[in-house]
Amino acid sequence: MEKKRVLSGNRPTGRLHLGHLVGILGNWVDMQDQYECFYEVADWHVLTTSIENSGTISENTREMAMDWFAVGIDPEKSTVFVQSRVPEHAELHLLFSMLATVSRLERNPTYKEQINELNLGDQVSYGLLGYPVLQAADVLIYRAHAVPVGDDQLPHLEFTREMARRFNYLFGEVFPVPEPKLTKTARLPGIDGRKMSKSYGNAIFLTDDPDTVHKKVWNVITDPQRIRLKDPGNPEVCNVYSFYKVFADDRVERVGRECRNAERGCTACKKELVEILIDLLAPIQKERKKFEQDPGLVEDYLARGSEKAREEAAATMKIVRQKMGVGRI
Amino acid sequence: MEKKRVLSGNRPTGRLHLGHLVGILGNWVDMQDQYECFYEVADWHVLTTSIENSGTISENTREMAMDWFAVGIDPEKSTVFVQSRVPEHAELHLLFSMLATVSRLERNPTYKEQINELNLGDQVSYGLLGYPVLQAADVLIYRAHAVPVGDDQLPHLEFTREMARRFNYLFGEVFPVPEPKLTKTARLPGIDGRKMSKSYGNAIFLTDDPDTVHKKVWNVITDPQRIRLKDPGNPEVCNVYSFYKVFADDRVERVGRECRNAERGCTACKKELVEILIDLLAPIQKERKKFEQDPGLVEDYLARGSEKAREEAAATMKIVRQKMGVGRI
Repeated sequence: MEKKRVLSGNRPTGRLHLGHLVGILGNWVDMQDQYECFYEVADWHVLTTSIENSGTISENTREMAMDWFAVGIDPEKSTVFVQSRVPEHAELHLLFSMLATVSRLERNPTYKEQINELNLGDQVSYGLLGYPVLQAADVLIYRAHAVPVGDDQLPHLEFTREMARRFNYLFGEVFPVPEPKLTKTARLPGIDGRKMSKSYGNAIFLTDDPDTVHKKVWNVITDPQRIRLKDPGNPEVCNVYSFYKVFADDRVERVGRECRNAERGCTACKKELVEILIDLLAPIQKERKKFEQDPGLVEDYLARGSEKAREEAAATMKIVRQKMGVGRI
Repeated sequence: MEKKRVLSGNRPTGRLHLGHLVGILGNWVDMQDQYECFYEVADWHVLTTSIENSGTISENTREMAMDWFAVGIDPEKSTVFVQSRVPEHAELHLLFSMLATVSRLERNPTYKEQINELNLGDQVSYGLLGYPVLQAADVLIYRAHAVPVGDDQLPHLEFTREMARRFNYLFGEVFPVPEPKLTKTARLPGIDGRKMSKSYGNAIFLTDDPDTVHKKVWNVITDPQRIRLKDPGNPEVCNVYSFYKVFADDRVERVGRECRNAERGCTACKKELVEILIDLLAPIQKERKKFEQDPGLVEDYLARGSEKAREEAAATMKIVRQKMGVGRI
């Protein structure tokens, strides 16, 4: 039986951190045997809010892709490509822009959030309003069957599904209506307790060396009520414990019990976590070295993946143009 | 000295009429020696308001292009191309969509007009809002120096000029800021006195045979106050006279005088106009026969023009991608 096809992607944000690893990359690695996976560096999407920084995109792409390959995204199994190197996305985006209504796009909750968060006022780009249109083109141009999504991304996928249905209704069946593949993602706090994010400066990066990991873990806030070693702790309010939950399934029960019974101190607990994280990162960093030492390698992988993606995208566009009667045949 | 480059285009509306001839095509023919002209069949633009009719576009393109070539658009002098066969437009459109703000596009007067005229309510497509963005890409991808415009199109060109300036400011000089080339266009009424338009059913087509021209001219409304031949007429309210003004410079003074002095009747006046129009259309129709008899010829012209356009567009996109650091190099 043919494997179902999955598309997922991420904006190139440069070096990735543990939040990415547990939120996305772990799933991506796991899906590779079961699905035919397309993983996209969504670089055009960066421009929706910061076109003036386009100069940083290629370096951020490079750094992110190295992390992808280092954690186990396998270019022999999966198609790893750069969106802007597959210009067919732009053509499908243009066609979908005729199928999407302004009022539907304005109702997109993420759109409103971003306007507020970034304080855009009336400086909202047309491209930001059309973010879901480009996203729909990204998914559908590969005729993907499924898209891995967290709960919060369900509205985006719903828009993509609408585009597929609307196109199929008008022009005949071309696009599978992609199903959400709900993924288990652990929510990892940063060292300050907020969501781990590069922009909050609270992230532990996949590239952090043991010293840096040590320093960062030492800054993680534990149970603030626990002053002395002999005070019983409350692991549920301890950020170090959150890391155990995500990265040390086999120890989490014991660690929690010892904390509650004041049998382990925060220092020992952090020390153990540092070791866990260093052990986790070591093989990733070893793998990443290969790419750092051979600068052509990551570019070679991305070039090959983008070529392969382009063939698929071109095949879809050929059908789209025929069905619509518009465009190069 | 190198010729300045001009871009102009039209949505494929099928067979053209006398209104197109005096409004656009005459200018296009005249510009060919003085400028390097790019003439675009703007087929993607049709989709902004009627994507469900995309199936009619290729036949309408064919019919319109035959008229273009028949009136004297010379594919040896000018680059005549089909927008959707130059997918680079879609890529530049996507990039410009990040430079344009929603609020700026919402202020476009044509946008509001179209919403009202077509009664779109909240069914306005995202692509219709972005019409000027695609138009800017159409012009700038050829790095055109000038765009022929009537007064009513000045706001559109202003948007294109803004895109050019904004891109150049952010990424360095790539696009000439195109100048408006104000064209003298005669406003030709249709046979019912309203603006000549296919959708009003009041047009005399370039392909109308002598009988049809005769019938249509016979329906043109003359001075309604003039009942009998010996009544003096008022040419300024006579629609037949409007045609003389546009198509018979050398006779218009005499015709007006004779009408006012009741020296010519409406029947004679119409008869003379029929002859003028038949003489005008005969060489156009003769030329058009060449294309009707050889169905491959117009396709061949469009294919060659589109290839040439594509080379130019690809060269521009190469520079755009380099300047922005995004996309295929």
